[in-house]
Formats: sequence, C-alpha cells, structure tokens
Amino acid sequence: MRIVDLIEKKKQGQSHTKEEIKFLIDSLMDGSAPDYQISAWLMAVYFKGMTEEETAMLTEEMVNSGDIIDFGMLAESIVDKHSTGGVGDKVTITLIPLLAAAGVPIAKLSGKGLGHTGGTIDKLESIPGFNTKLSIDDLIRQVNNINVAIASQTKNLAPADGKLYALRDVTATVDSMPLIASSVVSKKIASGAKNIILDVKYGSGAFMKTPEQAEELSRLMVNVGKILGKSIIAVITSMENPLGRAVGNSLEIIESMEFLKGNIKTGDIADLTYSFAAIALMQLGMYDDEYQAKEFLREIVENGKALEKFKELIEAQGGDPKVIDDYDKFELPEYKIECESKKTGFVHNIDAYKIAYACKILGAGRDKKTDPIDYSVGIYLNKKSGEGVNKGETLYTIYSNDMEKTKIAQKYCDEAFYINENKPTGNSMIYKIIKADED
Amino acid sequence: MRIVDLIEKKKQGQSHTKEEIKFLIDSLMDGSAPDYQISAWLMAVYFKGMTEEETAMLTEEMVNSGDIIDFGMLAESIVDKHSTGGVGDKVTITLIPLLAAAGVPIAKLSGKGLGHTGGTIDKLESIPGFNTKLSIDDLIRQVNNINVAIASQTKNLAPADGKLYALRDVTATVDSMPLIASSVVSKKIASGAKNIILDVKYGSGAFMKTPEQAEELSRLMVNVGKILGKSIIAVITSMENPLGRAVGNSLEIIESMEFLKGNIKTGDIADLTYSFAAIALMQLGMYDDEYQAKEFLREIVENGKALEKFKELIEAQGGDPKVIDDYDKFELPEYKIECESKKTGFVHNIDAYKIAYACKILGAGRDKKTDPIDYSVGIYLNKKSGEGVNKGETLYTIYSNDMEKTKIAQKYCDEAFYINENKPTGNSMIYKIIKADED
Repeated sequence: MRIVDLIEKKKQGQSHTKEEIKFLIDSLMDGSAPDYQISAWLMAVYFKGMTEEETAMLTEEMVNSGDIIDFGMLAESIVDKHSTGGVGDKVTITLIPLLAAAGVPIAKLSGKGLGHTGGTIDKLESIPGFNTKLSIDDLIRQVNNINVAIASQTKNLAPADGKLYALRDVTATVDSMPLIASSVVSKKIASGAKNIILDVKYGSGAFMKTPEQAEELSRLMVNVGKILGKSIIAVITSMENPLGRAVGNSLEIIESMEFLKGNIKTGDIADLTYSFAAIALMQLGMYDDEYQAKEFLREIVENGKALEKFKELIEAQGGDPKVIDDYDKFELPEYKIECESKKTGFVHNIDAYKIAYACKILGAGRDKKTDPIDYSVGIYLNKKSGEGVNKGETLYTIYSNDMEKTKIAQKYCDEAFYINENKPTGNSMIYKIIKADED
Repeated sequence: MRIVDLIEKKKQGQSHTKEEIKFLIDSLMDGSAPDYQISAWLMAVYFKGMTEEETAMLTEEMVNSGDIIDFGMLAESIVDKHSTGGVGDKVTITLIPLLAAAGVPIAKLSGKGLGHTGGTIDKLESIPGFNTKLSIDDLIRQVNNINVAIASQTKNLAPADGKLYALRDVTATVDSMPLIASSVVSKKIASGAKNIILDVKYGSGAFMKTPEQAEELSRLMVNVGKILGKSIIAVITSMENPLGRAVGNSLEIIESMEFLKGNIKTGDIADLTYSFAAIALMQLGMYDDEYQAKEFLREIVENGKALEKFKELIEAQGGDPKVIDDYDKFELPEYKIECESKKTGFVHNIDAYKIAYACKILGAGRDKKTDPIDYSVGIYLNKKSGEGVNKGETLYTIYSNDMEKTKIAQKYCDEAFYINENKPTGNSMIYKIIKADED
C-alpha cells in the first residue's frame, strides 16, 4: 500500500477501507508518511469528505494510536460531558455534583485549558487546596466512595489527533466535518466513558457559525458513536453571548456555587445545567420524561443535596470546603472596578470573544500549558442580554491585579456591549438535541 | 503574508495576486514554506484550478527562480520545439537540420532523457564523436556560423518546477492543468526562445488521455505564452502508436537520416516533420500558406540541402559524418533478431508503452541521469499500423546485446501488436493546432 495511492483515491472521491485508514494512521504515527503527503490527503478529505463509516474507522484508529482509559465496571454507568468550548461555560462544574447527587456516577477527566480563560481543571484549582492530580485508580476509588471525582488528564489520549490537528492548523484543513468529528469523538472514546453528552456550540464566536452546521456535525458525531458502540447525545447550543454572569476562574466557581445553593433558578446556566442533567438521566434510562427528570433535579438543588455533594467533592480532593460559605477565602484580586453604562436601554448582545479577550489581558488564561494563571481576575456581567440598564448604572465589574491591564480590558468590555432602546426578544439557549436513530 | 492564508484563499476558489504567487514560490525556494503547506496548496489548486492570469504569474515566478538563458540578438528569430514525449519520437532530429537549411536559426538546448528510451541528446550522442557539451557562447557562435547547434542543457532552469514536481509526484497532484502548463512553459521560457512550438501528445500512453484534455492544456499554455510575451503554438498529436519504425538511439538517428535523404516521403515522421517545420516558417512570417511552406520544405529535402545541413551539424560538433553513408560506423549490437508474425492480417495498433518497455529491458534507456545507455539496441517495426502482414513474415526486429533480455523484450513486443483480419481506417496524426487568439 502506498500513501500516494490513498491520496489519489480520496481525490477521486472514493471511500477508504478499514485497512487503508489503519495504514494512514500507522504511517502517521511511525513517521513513515511524510507530513506533505498527510496534508495533501487532508485537503482531499476537505474537498471530497468521508462517509460516516470512514469517519468511524478514522476515529477508531485515532483512539488506538494511544492510551485508552479503563474504568472497568464503572464504564457502563458513568456519563462524560464535553463542551466544544464557550466563554463563561461553567456548566461542567454545576452538572457534576448535581448528577452525582442524583445517583449518577461521574468520573471526569479534563485537560488543562488553553485560551483566553482557564478550563474546568483550572477553575476547580482556584479552590484553595483542591488537588486534581489523581491516578485512574484513585479516581475510581473516589467514585465508588462518593459517586464523583475529577482529575486532570495526563494520559496520551488519541495522539494521532494531536499530530493531525497540528498539520490541519497550518494547512487550512481545520474546517472539515469528518476531521472535526473524529477529533472530538476519538478523545472522548479514549477517555473511557460509554455515555457521552456533547455540547456543540454555534455562533459567531464558535467554530460552527450556524445552527445548521452544528447540526450536521452533531449528527455525524452521534452516528460515529453508534457505529463504535457508544451512546452519544449532542446538544446544540447558542454561543453568541457569554454563559452566566461570571468569566474568570474563581468567579465562575462562585457562580456555580450560587446555582447549587438554589440562588440562580432561571437563565442560561440553570437552563443548560438542568437540560444536560435531564438528558443524562434519560440516557441512563432513569427517566423517560424530561419534565419529570428536571423536577427531580430541581428538588435535589432545593434540598441542598447538590451543594452537599460539591462539598464532599472538594473535601475528598483536599480542597477547603469553607469557601462555599465564605467567598473571601478564595484568592482575592487587588482591584474591583465597577464600570458604568454610558447609555440607557436594553442589552441586546455581549460579544463573547471581546469579554474573553479582556479576561486574557487580565491574566485569566494561558497560551502554553506551562504558563501560570491568575485565578482571582475576571469580569462579572452585572447586566446580561435582555436586561435593561440606566446610564450610570453598573454594567460590568472588572476583577484585576494591574491597573494598566484594567484600562485595556475596560476598552474591550465597553465595545462588547450592544445596548439599544428597544426591548429584545429572548432566544432559547438550546437549538436542538441530536440522538442516534433507533434501529 | 502567511502561507496558511494563501491555502485558505485557494481552497475557497479565489484567485491569487502576483504578490501572493511570488511569496509562495519565494518561500518554496528559500525553504521557509514547509512541504506540507505547499502540498496542501497544490491539492487546493487541483480542486479549484487557476485562471490563465494566475497560471502565467506562476509560470513567470518559476522562470525567475533560476537561470534564464540569454540568446541576445538571436532570441527573436530562433524557434524552439518541445514534445511532451513519445515512443520513437525523433521529430526534433529531423526538424532541426530541415529548418536550419530553410534559413531558420536553431539553437536547441535539451536535457538528458530519463525513461525507457533516450532523449534527443542521447540519440545524437550515438553518432561517434558527437559532442553536446557546448557553452551558451559556443552555441551562439555555431548558430551564427552554420545556423544550427544543439547542446545538452546544464543550467539551473526553473528549479521551482523541479521542487514542485517532486512534491506533486508523491501527493497525487500531477494531473492539474495549471500545474502542468506552468511546468512545461516555464522550462521553455527559461530556455530563452521567443518562438515555441509545443507537440502536445494524447492517447493511452500519454499524459493527456483524450484529445479534448490535450486541447484544454494546449489552449492554456498558448494563452500563458501570450500573457508573458512569447509566441507559443501547440500541435496536438496522437500518441497511440510509436512514431516511425525505429525505437532506440542509433536506430532513430538512422531513420532520421533516411528521412533527410528523401527516402521516407510519407507516414507519421514525414507528416509531423513537415507540419512542424511549416508552422515554424509561418510563425516567423516567412510563409502565409501551409501548402506552399511544405512544398518549399520538401524541395530542401529532395535537393539534399537538409541532409547537407545535418552533415555540417555533425562535423561542427565533432561527430563522424561518414555515418551518414555507412550506418555500420555506428556502434553495432551483437544480435539482430527478426521476429515473425504469428498470424495473417492487418496491424491495427502497436502498444507504444510495451515497445518502449522492451527497449528499456534491452538497455536503451535509464532511470537515473548517471546510468549508462546502450546506443546500439532497440526495436525496428517492420510492420506499422495499417499495414498487412502474412504469417511467418517479419513483424519486427530486435537489436540486442543479451539473449536473455531479448527473450523478455520479445514477449512484450509480441503483446504490443494487435493484428486483425479487417483493414483499418487511417487516422490523421495531427488532431488540432492551437494558436493564441488574435487581439
């Protein structure tokens, strides 16, 4: 078999066999296929696509290229949730204790976040003492004890994806549905869960610009999961605005605690958390009806069980649970600057990218995995889309340790808000839920 | 400017600017563009094509990537002829003395041939003593003296083409019209001639499978020439059968001499030689009418002037002109094996590729530029397409220095002939002549 013949075959729009895909990925991994051949093949895939079967084969070979986490007996019952990434997205943090309290075992592995704000692991590490460096054995032991554990992912999962992505990034072949789908799904399958919920974002700030594109990608990922024997449900959600009011590491933990305390009953964070949790309960066969599932979940928040589970998680992983009752126990920033609205009207839109960029300037994110993160800084949105504001009223608050950086962040935040006299009509956060077709 | 943005632009089907093409080729040459980006760009070009203007820009930048031969005053008047390559194609050798005798200055640079049989330089070097290692100054001096000179090309012409071709070969991006056109035309322009005749072959053995494909390529090359201020005429010719009867180095020189002696008045070699020569005379404005041009050219062959010019050329370049009257002065092969036809009928087709492959086995060609060539070996086709043959009559003759190789060559030659009872209808060698549109 020769790589050049496989490029020619894909260029002609033909489908690869399992042996061909395996040969491609093996050759990529052992270095026998030069990058210039792989990149020509990627461009041919961009133009000619791949069938669901081919995408599933590619996904499987990418999984087989590295470590596969073995949760043993737990694998069947645990749920894994993955988001394609959103500004202020703390729904993993609200969801984990809620589901665990509802009786669903959660063993979550998460990578260090790159980008403008930290990832789930970074956010949790803003809790003083919280340790995410657990071995897989420790993770399983803790799940058996208290139904929930979260660890930073250090295994070599789907390394073929890393190699392919590095090439795609510099050869304009990132935006190909089968390549995106195999990238996302291979990481999740290698992470060991059998039940997977994918939050697929769309919007100007997301990779999928329109809900239709997000739906096409979702359907492909769900069907690839089915071919490979995994239960994947994709939830297509809007990413036009930041999620919730807090953007930044400890600020997002505080907002998550407020939700778990029952203080945030409506809005995007509550909507998404209850929806994802209800989908998980239905995926596991615990409920048939979404309304009933959500009633049950709201009860768990109202009666304090969800917050109690979060406290157990923090204690089990060495964190200080007192932060729940005293937010001042978080590392505090030097400055807290309330910024006024320059006009009266309604907030129609908040540019998520600009808010994220402001947070990056303040020090909330990182470019390289070894860069330090400032957990204490961030932006709090006092007004969100759909809300009214008067001139002079606080529009947002900057948490900062540097006044120079604050000024630049303020410029970006001012630009992020679009305020108009007319009251906007509200949009649902969730566009569609995509499940595998029944046989 | 970033290569990844240029790949994205081409992927979207947009046209490159002159600056962008220059940046691509500069980055290719100085090594700052990695191969994997160039190959992704090549695949995007395969799918999205290039306009004539873009192809001309690419051609020009490829010319500028290396040496450009300067013929000085001669550049305007000389004609260069290039063939995309055919089995038994000795038309360059018959054409050069004919045109020189007709008053057209010829300064021909040719590369060493790679493949199953030698190139024009190899064929001429089968004449004992013939020296093709002339400097450009020597070449010009000789053309001023006797109107004709031929030298092996040693300059670094259009090296960007060499780099691109090496990548195209291993990434399934050879068969792209703008990439083929810029490759052929850049080499010719760097070779210094202003008037260029391209013999564009089509057929099962050629790169262009159909006359329609050959026409598309021809039109592109002719228009690229026009944009770059060169007069290019493309002649689309069939390459279903070997050209002439002789395939092999000295055998082809002998057949060329037979033509120049006036002993071959009809058939493919005579047709093509007179046609190309007439086109050249018209391209230079010496004749308006093809029929009159051909009458003039036939007269030059009949009165011995063309043969006399070939003798002058051989003498000027140190060769032994006695070979013209005594073919035994060529290096002779050990064996000359006449092979009989196994049936009675008409030859309908001779597979050019199989004949070429048989010659390669006998030692007539080379894989690497440093491989030696056996000038004496080859195949002589006693019967050609359209001719009748009786069972037991000689169908072809093998000239060889090794009986083992002869047996293998014979097997390929036997397979090459397609003989049938019905008389075939003849086909014209020339499908179409493509010139630049008049303004």
